[in-house]
This record gives sequence, structure tokens and C-alpha cells, in this order.
Amino acid sequence: MTEQLVFFFGEGKADGDAKMKHTLGGKGANLAEMTNLGIPVPPGFTISTDCCGYVSKNKTWPKGLDKMVRTALARLEKVAGRKFGDARDPLLVSVRSGAASSMPGMMDTVLNLGLSPQSVKGLAKKTGNPRLAWDSYRRFVNMFGNVVCGVSHELFEEAMAAVKAQHGAQKDLDLDAAAMEDLAKRYLKIFEKATGEAFPSDPWEQLQRAINAVFQSWDNERAVTYRRLNKITGLRGTAVNVQTMVFGNYGDTSATGVCFTRDPSTGENVFYGEFLPNAQGEDVVAGIRTPLPIADIDKHIPGTYEKLIGIKHQLEEHYHDVQDIEFTVQEGELFMLQTRTGKRTGKAAVRIAVEMVKEKLISKKDAIRQVDPAALDQLLHPDFDPHCERKEIGKGLPASPGAASGRIYFSAEDAEAAAARSEAVILVRHETSPEDIGGMHVSKGILTSRGGMTSHAAVVARGMGTCCVAGCGEISIDDKNKTMTSRGITLKEGDWISLDGSLGKVYEGKLPTIDPQFSKEFETLMGWADEKRRLKVRTNADTPKDCEVARRFGAQGIGLCRTEHMFFDEARIMAVREMIVAANKEQRRAALDKLLPHQRSDFIGIFKAMDGLPVTIRLLDPPLHEFLPLTEESQAEVAKSMGVKVDVIRRKVSELHEINPMLGHRGCRLGLTHPEIYEMQVRAIVEAVAACEQEGVKVLPEIMHPLVATRTELTQLRAMTERVIEEVRQESGLKADILIGTMIEVPRAALTADEIAEEADFFSFGTNDLTQMTFGFSRDDTGPILIHYQTTGILDVDPFACLDVTGVGQLVRMAVEKGRKTRRSLKCGICGEHGGDPKSIAFCNEVGLDYVSCSPYRVPIARLAAAQASLGQVTATE
Amino acid sequence: MTEQLVFFFGEGKADGDAKMKHTLGGKGANLAEMTNLGIPVPPGFTISTDCCGYVSKNKTWPKGLDKMVRTALARLEKVAGRKFGDARDPLLVSVRSGAASSMPGMMDTVLNLGLSPQSVKGLAKKTGNPRLAWDSYRRFVNMFGNVVCGVSHELFEEAMAAVKAQHGAQKDLDLDAAAMEDLAKRYLKIFEKATGEAFPSDPWEQLQRAINAVFQSWDNERAVTYRRLNKITGLRGTAVNVQTMVFGNYGDTSATGVCFTRDPSTGENVFYGEFLPNAQGEDVVAGIRTPLPIADIDKHIPGTYEKLIGIKHQLEEHYHDVQDIEFTVQEGELFMLQTRTGKRTGKAAVRIAVEMVKEKLISKKDAIRQVDPAALDQLLHPDFDPHCERKEIGKGLPASPGAASGRIYFSAEDAEAAAARSEAVILVRHETSPEDIGGMHVSKGILTSRGGMTSHAAVVARGMGTCCVAGCGEISIDDKNKTMTSRGITLKEGDWISLDGSLGKVYEGKLPTIDPQFSKEFETLMGWADEKRRLKVRTNADTPKDCEVARRFGAQGIGLCRTEHMFFDEARIMAVREMIVAANKEQRRAALDKLLPHQRSDFIGIFKAMDGLPVTIRLLDPPLHEFLPLTEESQAEVAKSMGVKVDVIRRKVSELHEINPMLGHRGCRLGLTHPEIYEMQVRAIVEAVAACEQEGVKVLPEIMHPLVATRTELTQLRAMTERVIEEVRQESGLKADILIGTMIEVPRAALTADEIAEEADFFSFGTNDLTQMTFGFSRDDTGPILIHYQTTGILDVDPFACLDVTGVGQLVRMAVEKGRKTRRSLKCGICGEHGGDPKSIAFCNEVGLDYVSCSPYRVPIARLAAAQASLGQVTATE
Repeated sequence: MTEQLVFFFGEGKADGDAKMKHTLGGKGANLAEMTNLGIPVPPGFTISTDCCGYVSKNKTWPKGLDKMVRTALARLEKVAGRKFGDARDPLLVSVRSGAASSMPGMMDTVLNLGLSPQSVKGLAKKTGNPRLAWDSYRRFVNMFGNVVCGVSHELFEEAMAAVKAQHGAQKDLDLDAAAMEDLAKRYLKIFEKATGEAFPSDPWEQLQRAINAVFQSWDNERAVTYRRLNKITGLRGTAVNVQTMVFGNYGDTSATGVCFTRDPSTGENVFYGEFLPNAQGEDVVAGIRTPLPIADIDKHIPGTYEKLIGIKHQLEEHYHDVQDIEFTVQEGELFMLQTRTGKRTGKAAVRIAVEMVKEKLISKKDAIRQVDPAALDQLLHPDFDPHCERKEIGKGLPASPGAASGRIYFSAEDAEAAAARSEAVILVRHETSPEDIGGMHVSKGILTSRGGMTSHAAVVARGMGTCCVAGCGEISIDDKNKTMTSRGITLKEGDWISLDGSLGKVYEGKLPTIDPQFSKEFETLMGWADEKRRLKVRTNADTPKDCEVARRFGAQGIGLCRTEHMFFDEARIMAVREMIVAANKEQRRAALDKLLPHQRSDFIGIFKAMDGLPVTIRLLDPPLHEFLPLTEESQAEVAKSMGVKVDVIRRKVSELHEINPMLGHRGCRLGLTHPEIYEMQVRAIVEAVAACEQEGVKVLPEIMHPLVATRTELTQLRAMTERVIEEVRQESGLKADILIGTMIEVPRAALTADEIAEEADFFSFGTNDLTQMTFGFSRDDTGPILIHYQTTGILDVDPFACLDVTGVGQLVRMAVEKGRKTRRSLKCGICGEHGGDPKSIAFCNEVGLDYVSCSPYRVPIARLAAAQASLGQVTATE
Repeated sequence: MTEQLVFFFGEGKADGDAKMKHTLGGKGANLAEMTNLGIPVPPGFTISTDCCGYVSKNKTWPKGLDKMVRTALARLEKVAGRKFGDARDPLLVSVRSGAASSMPGMMDTVLNLGLSPQSVKGLAKKTGNPRLAWDSYRRFVNMFGNVVCGVSHELFEEAMAAVKAQHGAQKDLDLDAAAMEDLAKRYLKIFEKATGEAFPSDPWEQLQRAINAVFQSWDNERAVTYRRLNKITGLRGTAVNVQTMVFGNYGDTSATGVCFTRDPSTGENVFYGEFLPNAQGEDVVAGIRTPLPIADIDKHIPGTYEKLIGIKHQLEEHYHDVQDIEFTVQEGELFMLQTRTGKRTGKAAVRIAVEMVKEKLISKKDAIRQVDPAALDQLLHPDFDPHCERKEIGKGLPASPGAASGRIYFSAEDAEAAAARSEAVILVRHETSPEDIGGMHVSKGILTSRGGMTSHAAVVARGMGTCCVAGCGEISIDDKNKTMTSRGITLKEGDWISLDGSLGKVYEGKLPTIDPQFSKEFETLMGWADEKRRLKVRTNADTPKDCEVARRFGAQGIGLCRTEHMFFDEARIMAVREMIVAANKEQRRAALDKLLPHQRSDFIGIFKAMDGLPVTIRLLDPPLHEFLPLTEESQAEVAKSMGVKVDVIRRKVSELHEINPMLGHRGCRLGLTHPEIYEMQVRAIVEAVAACEQEGVKVLPEIMHPLVATRTELTQLRAMTERVIEEVRQESGLKADILIGTMIEVPRAALTADEIAEEADFFSFGTNDLTQMTFGFSRDDTGPILIHYQTTGILDVDPFACLDVTGVGQLVRMAVEKGRKTRRSLKCGICGEHGGDPKSIAFCNEVGLDYVSCSPYRVPIARLAAAQASLGQVTATE
């Protein structure tokens, strides 16, 4: 490695810029960009992400890096007019991580680096502010000890508490310079005791070790987990930013703060954020003290608000997006320490995008590109029924919108265990930390008693789309006994509460929910998306109710209507079972005759709900044994009500038992060995079409045969289907053309799509099964393996969530090409889970599918993702 | 259809020839060929197979056929000098089926067609042989009634028995003309009663209906089953041969017979066959009378034997192969009615091929091409131990060689049911008929009390390679009570007997067997095959004993050594279970440490047995639950001997339970989640290599990782494998290069073979699993579906027996191409069941695999098939 590894910024000019995120990380690239924009940024330099990758692999610095860092440091000394390690006027620096993708709180930071027992005195003298010097020194020892040497944070906290108690101080602000000096010395002793070494006083050693610690933090467990959960892949490592310190803890006209250029929760165009006077660095984010609203900053340091607003406008105009910024004021002088694209709720994302178009900051295309389709998910889920009775037991900050009910658990571990038992979980914590990521991920909602809108809990919950009430000081939590008390009510582990993350309210018990209402900005954005997309969006729906929801969300048809769900209905399951245990064809037909009218009326309901739109109905797919009772008790019950001996049921259950049901007697195999089942279903569909036609409903039916692996299966099924259609046409004067097609969900079907297309009017890719068979992964069995594979880097993502373009995608692409070669007009769609995944939708667009089909609640996500795909926003193979 | 549909032969010239089998069927094509050769053949004409296909589809004759048949008939009348339907001197014809592939007994024949109540008298007068006339007439009524109108054969048999009794006759030969007339008239009444119509006397109507019956017989159940069992596909239908009758039942200087130009059982170059004096048509084949050896024919009709020998030489020189011929002698004049390639035992096939090369009748290449590799199977199976005690209870004809023990069953149905219970079955019948095909197929051996070497049972058994003792008159069978008695011993259903099909002997009980000895002709042929083939042949072997058998059979290495079988050994299974229920890594390692020496010594045994040849070892493949006990009893036992609570076992069993184990936690997934298992195995292999090297054994080890679906799996496994190899190399001075490769058995592995080849020295196609996943067919569950699919024409063959070239083959071809693009030297082989299937081997040759690997007993088959593939004998895609 001989290229440039260190990039300087300062004095209005930088080596890098915002486009160099991959090399400089997000933080470094934007520090460079802001420097170039003339925004006040403390000078510094960034060590490239390549170095992190190199160090992670080779356990040593790349050749030349040492020299480049020393050169940059010398330049920094020159610009700052201070020497690193100078005993009288030391240059102090911060050392921060920063990868190309934002990973808040996942990696480490060391501030005030360069202090030593000598220079802390020099700093005190030079600044005339011994409290600043000792506060800075004790913070440095704490952070260096914790980040570089793994000394427990708790040890330092205990010392802080002891000193506070000794001085009768409530807050750390109440500690004077002497107390801070005392504290710093205690910290040094803690460090020595914990590590067995003296605290290093050579600033170059401090710097090297801090840089290495940041590199290492890239591979720590929580960072790896974060990247897995957030599907962050393909990065080289973290960059390291070494920057001249400015001090928010210089005194009363100093402060540090975090702001969003617009409200990240609602999207409203107001400057939004918090600050802590006389504080440093991580105090805000960590939620240790409760910060003040940014609008009040002029009360402490006049003129600052206007400066911030100016920078807000400059940044939004430059970046064309909402920015999340960090700043420090040192004795009235404002410095920007970070800017990055602001994370926001789905609701905010939509409003911001649409309003920015109106403000002419961005184009409609930009607006479509700007909103993460996955974030819409939050908008599409139910809210509490406004009319329901509720008992409020607390109010905190509306940190992440949405509504959730669940059982309370007081540790991430307990939450994960409960979620594994399929419980709905609300995680209740004083404050959350990166260690809690796993528990937060499985929770329906998060409640904290401390911390602000930018606390760890709030930021992470918004990113996850999980509802969160933060800083609800009313509640007191007893971790030991696993109870919480608020307004005189004590709840224990496992009790139900409900959270309204949009209002910041906490309710006792479980509350009923209603469907979400869409904002006009949402409708506007969806309208723009619909103009741009080529892919149609259908839905997977089995009931008229599903259909209604999906139409409201903009579905353009049903891509998958599963008929087996109808079989489980109480009124029918007995006839289904009679059909299965039938001793011969006649008995089976008799049972099917009972089912026919039910199925017909199911389809009538669905066709009416989808009036004018295509409806793809899949014939019976699961193996018959799924409909039979497994326990002895229920077998006896069923036998009794069917009037047969329990042996008959038992024998049938054992006869139908399969070792690998996924690869067994299901799908069209059933239709071929038991033709009367599919015949009944086809008849029910076609009679329903005819009935609807008579009522003036426009039906566009598509009959789909599942699990086809060979052309001849479909030849025979098509012949049967056409025969039944013709029969009903004769009987009822049916008018509709009915398409006949197949799922492509078996690898062989994709491989022989040219042959199969001879018999199919359409293909629908069942990528769930196709993924199972292509990988040889049973969804039912390989969950833990998939997690192991993602953790150990064998798989980047779960191939059941995001389509495996390399393998499964190859089959999809091949099938579309081969199929259309045989039949140019072949309609192609997808109805697996992937139909609602934005990246998979991009792939579907790329290979020329006609539509994607997904669950009703994901339809808007798919509409937006399809538009982004049309705009070339996302490429599936990137 | 306006082309030629009817092909005339007669007077030394024919419209067709032997190359036109697809159009004329085998029989028709060879009748034409013999006519052209100047061999005496009764003149006639053949209606093409296209007509059968047309009639089967359209239920009517193609345009023009009626006219063409009438024209041919007129020509036949001219040549024969007799008129069809002439009351005084009628032209009589036979109507026989004949498809392009021989399907003995599967379709129907009508003889003596053209007789009526008037012309039978004319025939009697004209020939001066009223017995001939009435015998012919009653046969005609019987066959027409049975074949064309479905009248039960039994009804006619009963009448025959009654007339015999009335005349005190033992055999039908004892019946005089009057008795025959009586019989004919009874037959006519039977016909009328059964069909409700008068027997047709118009010869043209007789002819039309007989032709239609032959067409229809193509689609009858036993013909369809025969084609499925024999994998006969792609035919258009049967041809119909209409031929002037000659009469073997003309009197004492008349006869009918069936011969092979060489002994079809041993291959010895002797003229071999049987005849019946004064008999007609099917009497020989049906086994109703026991025929005489052909060598004795001159005693009855002097000079005939020499004529037959002349024709034998002429046919063998012309066809370059053994012929199976039918002839009739009418009053001393010889006529050939059929010639076709003679079916033979594997032993005979080898001897004939090698001797014909020595006789300069054929080339070595022809010899290789002439032997059906599948037929070798018979040679490669054990014989009875010559030293074992045995009690002979009967002796019949050695109808199909080999040795078999099994339980006796007296009907095809019972045999099938017992086979379904995995019993070894011997089918015992008076005689077999085409209806018994299913039962014969599942039997280890067949014993009949009647019928000769060319009886149905004998012919079919030889074709199937099933051992058969035919015509064992000593045994008497009581169908009703399901017993057989012979030499005073009565055996009941389910009792064991043993058959020696090479000696024709029947023994009581179950006898021990020994491995077969190879003839020198076999070695010669194999030597020729080895010269011609490109594909290497390896074996699938897990024990030194398997290795020895396979080397003796010519295996050039091990393509698949499964390590899991070693785990089931009694001495080890407990350590395996300890390993599985281990609470942590340390316990697991401790258990594995116990297994290591066992595995090492397994591998030492195998390496020594395969000295100088490559050995591919597959690491543990099945899911761990396969090693745990499932019943409560055995769980308790295991818990006790392991010293743990039974709950520990039970919990582990339930924890490891999988819904679809085929797609579950197995193969390299185990190796990645439990790295210590594969590490132990790799160490055992490498230590075994080192130990063998020290003893001077040459080892060529190949370590194979199963179930790989992604490159990264193999990256990690390869790193582990290389590390352990390096460790052992340091410890022991190991010299061998060890190849590291993977199974390609998951569709995704084939699709991404270019990536996977970066980490693999070799690919081995596991086409069993690949077929399961590509089709979505679980071998454990879809057996009945596969049968249904073959019966209904959805699949031509079982894709687990014969590689599905269209689908699975596409993946194999793709993987070879992609893999070699990445790594030119990539070694590719196959180790699924298909590696021993001749047609699949042809495909493997075509796509450029380096070797096939199959079970030891199939190695010679694979060697021959590989040579045929090199000679272009078989193309997989034909």
C-alpha cells in the first residue's frame, strides 16, 4: 500500500470530499466537505478505511502509515499553533471511528488525547481554567481506559459517585476543579489497578493505541451484530478521524449539542435538537444528563442559534437532504464536529421528501430516491383505536412513532427469551446501550426512564421502526425484582403495557388498534412513485378483507390467493377430513361436493373485492396430512364426529406421514394423483366467475398450478382445467378468458422453463420454495444455521428475506428468458416473500418481471421500491 | 397421411427392410429383410406403426389405409393363388403385432383368419385333411374370440377339457377330425353366448376387427406396464403383420418351433431350440405342451435340421448377431415366420460377443457394442456356496441363471405384497402369463411347474436377469391352500426355498452364497472395453472388503467413501452419542478423541486396500439425530450406559428433530457449526495417510466436503482442512499431496460452480441429492408418485435410476463448464446411483467428466458402458 492513507482537513481546504465515503468513512468525508464549504470545523486528518482492513488482516500497520500520520500531525500542530505533548500548551485531539455506513454507538471514541500529568497542569495554566483541564483529563483516562484497555466503565462511575457524595454534589457540573483533579487521580489508580500498567503519558503512544483500538472496534461483537441486523456489507472497515479538540466543557459559554435540520420524527421543517451547557462529547448521546432544547441555546450563549440556522440552510442546500449534526461551542465560538444524512421515521421521510420538492430543494425523482421504502413500514401498521378506554401510567418523550402492546421485560436477555416463546415484548430499561441491540430487535416497543430524543434507545428504535417512549422519568424500575412502578401502580415482569411512540405515552394493559391513516404527503409521494415505476404491484391475499386493505394500499391485483387457508375454516375442515380419509373416489367426491359451495362463495367474495383487477388463484398446495389431527385426543374427537373408528384416522395419519414433507406429496402432485380435488377447485373458481359476471363484476381470473417440475404435469393439469372451464361455459354462459399458469418454485421448472412455457399463460415465481430447494435449506429447520452463517460471514443476508441474486436469481433470470423465448406474451411475476423486499424488487425489475406480489401491508413499500428500481436507484447486483 | 402405410413382402422381394424397424416394427422389418435374402417366408404385408399411433388418437383408420390394405390383400391372393374367403380353397392369414422394440407376449395374435363355416369345409376337402381344417378353425375362433372380443380363454379351455374327456383323449393330438369339429362348434357357441353376436363369417370383417384389436393391444395395461418396466419410450405404436398361413398342424410331417442360433443361456455356439410336431403357432411359447429338443427334428421330418442350420449361418452372417427365430414346417417344407436379435443372459452375451470376434463375424468394437451392460449384472452376483449342505427337492429347466433364496408366494399379487414388506420373494406358478409381470419383477426368483426354455416365464425372467427354474414337473402346486409339494415335502406360503437357475435345481431353505467367478471371455471383453473408454471407473466403498471386491471388478479408485457408516459400528456408536449430547465443546472434543483412533484405523484399512489408487473420502454427511435412539426403551438404555439422565437424551432428540431433514442440519453445515467433528475426521484421514506412507503404501487421498451451497462455506472448510493437514505434516513428515474438493449436490452449487471452483480441487456430483432438490422429490416420500408419474406418462423413467438429462443434467453440464472455466485442471466425477447406469454414464462421458463411481458390483457394467459411450453407442439425449 503506497497510496495516500491519511487525508488532512483544515484552514478551509481538505484533501478529501463527501464523495470519498468509502475511503474516509461518512464522518471523515463530511468533515472534509464542510471544511471545503467554509464551515467552521476543527482541523484534523482522517486515516483511510483501507488501513482498517489491512490491520484487521495483518495485525500491523501498513507500510508508510506511521510516517503519514506523523506528517499530518506535524501539519496539525502548525495549523493549531500548539505542539502535541507540549507540557505548557498541549495540542489535544479526539480520535473517532467512522465507517462508510453510519453505525451509531457501535464503535469507539477517545477525546482529549494528548494529556499527561504535566500537560494537564499546562492546560490549566494556559486556559486559566483548571476545572476544564482536570475534567478533560479524567474524561480522557476514562475513555482511554475503557476503549483502549477494556477497563470497565462501571469502575469509573463508582469513583464519580464517591467523589460526588464526598463533595455533596448532585451533578458532575457541581464538582469544582479540585474535585475533578481528585477524580482524575482516582481514575488513574483505577486504570493502573485494572491493567497492571501505568497510564501512558507519551502522547504518540496514546495516539497509536487509540487508533488501533478504533480499528479493532470494527470487529467487536456488537458492531458485527449491528452490521448483520442492518444488512451492511461490502465495507472495508472504519476510518479513524484525528481532530483538534474543542471544548464544550470550557465553562458556561461553552456547550455541546446534537441537532437535526428537520424534526426526524414528524418531518416538520423546524430546527430540532438538544444541547448540554459546559459538557463534552458523548454526554448528550449517552443520555446521562437530560439535555435542553436547542431553541433555548441563546439563553446560555447568545447568537448561537442564528449561526446554527445559517449552517442548517447551507447544509440542506448543499446535501439536498436533512442533516444530523454535532457541534461544540467553545467560549461562544461554534464548531461543527459532524454532519450526516439524518435518520428519520418513515412518516418524517415522506413529509421531508415531499416538502423539499415544494421548497425546490430537490426534484420529484430525488424525492422518490430519498425515502427508504422499508421505512414506510412504520406508517402502514395499526395505531391504537382512538375510542378505546385507556389508563395512562406515564408520559415520556415520543422517541419513535407507532403503537405497540406487549409484556414487559427488564433485560435484553429476558426479552429475547420471551420473544423466542413468541410473546409480544416491551423492553423496559433505565437506558439502553449497544449491548442491548439483540433485545431491542425482538421487542415490539421500548420504554426508557432516562435519556433524550437522541439517546441510544431513541436513535436505534427509530432506525428499526420500533415504537419507543424515552426518558419517561415517572417510572421507577426495580431491576432486581423485575418490577416497574409509575403513578402508584406496580407492574411485574410479564404484565402487559401499551406504548404510543408518537405521543410518548405509556398505558396499562393491552389496547386495541386500528388501521393507519395516510397523510396527504404520503399519497403525493405514492402518486409520484406510480408515475415512475414499470413493475406492477399485486398482493398476496386470501380473504376479501385482505383484498380491501391491499386495494386501499394500491394493490393492482392479487398475485397469490392461497386456497388452503379456506380449508381450515371450522365449517369446512370436517368435509376436508372426510375427503382425505375417504375409502374411494366416490366417497372423496361426496366430501368434495360439500366443499364446492364454500369455495365458490370464497371466490365470489374475493372477485367482488378485486372487481376489475386480476386475481391469481393457486390450487391446493400443502400435503393432505396438514389437515389431519395429530394428537390422540383430537383424533378421537374427529373420528367420533365423522362416525368412523379412530383407527381409520390414525391409519391415514400414519399413511400420509412424510419424512420430508417439503419435497413430498403436495402441490400439483396432489392434483395429479387426486384429480377430483383440483377439479372441484377449478369448478368452484369458474362457477364463481360466472356468478360474478351475472352481477356485472369484472373478473380477470388466473388459475395457478403449484410445484410443477415437468412440462407434462402441466400438460395434464391444463387439459383438466380447460375441460372444466368448458363444462361451466356450457352450463352458465361464462364469458371471461381464464389464464392458466404455474408457479416456478422447483429448480427443474426454471431449468426447463422453455418447455413449461408451452403449457403456461403465466409464470409466478415462488421464491420461498425456490430458495429452499436451490440452497437445500428447509425454512423450518435451518434458522439457527442461517444466523450462524450470517455471523461468520458465509452469507451476507438471509436469502429468505433478500433474494439470492447469484444463485436463485440465476434460475429466475433463466426461467424468464427461456419462458419468453417460447411464449413472447408470457406474464411473469413473483409471489414469494421477496416480492415485498426493496432490493429483491430491484432485481425483479432488472430481469423484466411484469409484477411483484407481496403482503397487503407491504404494497406501498413495493410501489416505492419499484419506482426506485425504474429510476435505477438500486441495482440488485451492486 | 398420404404416404405408404402398407408394405408388401413375398416372392423374394419386399417393400421394406431391416432398417425400417420404426415404421414396420421389428417383426415386419425382419420378415421383409428375410424375404429379400431369399429365405423362405410366407408372403404378406405389414401395416405401419404410424397407423397405430393415428388410430390410438383418432379412433378411426387413417385416410387411404382401407384401400392400401385391400390392394395388398389382392396382391397376396395373386401370389398365393388363393382367394380370401373362397369357400373351396380359402386364403388364410395370420394377424400379428410387432413394435420396433420387442415386447414378447405383450400384444396379440390371431391365426387362421379367413375361415368360415363354409370355407372350413372347403379347406378340409382341398387339403384332404379335415382334422387340420377343424383344428385350425377352432383355434381361430378361440383366438379371435379372446383377442378381438375379450372372451375368456378359460371358457374355451373348459370345452377342450370336456371334449377330451368325452373322447378319452390325453392330449389334443389324440383328438380326431370329428372331435375337432365338435370342439369348433362348441367354441362358436361359447363365442355367441359370451358376446351376444354371431361369429363373423365375412373374412374382410374378420380382418378389419383383428387389425383393430392389434392396434388396441398397444395400449392395454400389461403392454403399458411392460414398456414402463423396460423403459421403452418414444415408439409410435405397433405394426400389424398380415401373412399367408402355413400350417404346422398339417400332420405328422408338419411342426412349429422356436430356436436360437446359439444357446441364449450359456452362449455356447450350438443351435438351440424346441419344436412341437403337428402343432400351431403359440403352442410352443405358451408352454401348454412340453416341446422336443430341436436336435431331434430329423426324427420326425428328415432333412429339416440341416436346412435350419443353413439358415442359422445365413442369418448370423447377415445380422452379425445371435437370432431368435420362429419357423413352421408344413408337410416337410420349411418356412421362417420371424427372426430377431436373440435375448440372452449376460453370461451368454459375453461369450457370444467374444467368440464372434474370434470367428471373424464381428469386430472388437462390435463386440463391445453388442453386450448390454445391464445384462452383466447377472454375472456379478453371488452363486450358492458349493460347499454348503443342501437338500434338493426338485429339478426343472435351467431357464435363467443365477442363484436366489426367498419365501414362496403363489400369486403375483401376494408376491408384490410380500416384496412391499421387504421380503425376499420366490414366485411359484404353474406357468406365468403376461398378467404376472408385476409379481415377476419384484421376485428374486421364479419357479414354474410347466413350460419350456422358451416359455413366458423363461423368456421374461432372462430379460429381467432374474433367476428362473421352469417346467419343474415334480412339484405340485395347490393354489387354493397356498402350498407346494415335491419329493414328499410340503411347503406353505412364506417358507424359504432356494433356486439355482443355472442348474435348474430347487432346494429347501435358504442357502449361503459366494462371489461369482469370471469367465475368460468376460476378462477378454472387459480388456477390450478398457482399451476404448475415456471415463475412469471408481467405486463407492466404505470398507476394505468393499474395496477388495471393487478392485477385483476393475475399479480405478474410490469415488465415494462415506464416513458415517463407520460411526454406526457397535464399538463407536456410544462415543458418537456422547459427542452429540455433549454439553459443551470440551465434552464434545473428549468424545471425538475416543473416535479418532477408530476412524484412523478405518482409513488405514481402506488406503491399504486401495494402494496406488485415489480415494475420495466424504466427511460426515447425515444429520446428527440419525445417530440417536428414538424409542423410549433404547433412550433409557443409552442414558444408562452413558451415565446421564434419560431426559438429557430425550431433550437432545427433540432439539435435533427436523421437519425436513433432507434440507436440514447436515453435511458441511455440521462441519461449520461443529468444526471439531470435521477436524477430527480430517486429522484421522491425514494421520492414516502418514501411517500408510511409513509402511510404503502409496496413498492418493482426496478429502470431500458435502452439501456445499456457497463458495464461502468451502473457503472456511478448506482453510480448516489445510490447517489440520499442515499440523500433521509438521508432526509426522507426511509427504502426500491431499486434494480438497466438494460434492456438487445442491442446485446452488452447480449454479455458482465458477465461484466454488476457486476453492475446490475437484467436484463430485452427488446426483441423488441433486435430483431430489432439482425436482423437489424426496426419495423417502415420493415413491408412489414416481410410479404414478411413469404409469401416466408424466415421466419416462425414474429420475433416480436414470439421470434426468433435461433438468438435472443441465445443472451438471453447467457446473462442469463453469468450474473448468475457473480451474482448468478441475477433476470432475459422479458418485450418485447414476454412476452405475449405462445411459447416465453416456451422459457423463458427453459432458466431460473424468470418472464415474458406482457400487462395486456395478463396476464392470460401468466399464463396458463407458467404452460404449466412447464408441458413440449410446447418446444420453437420444
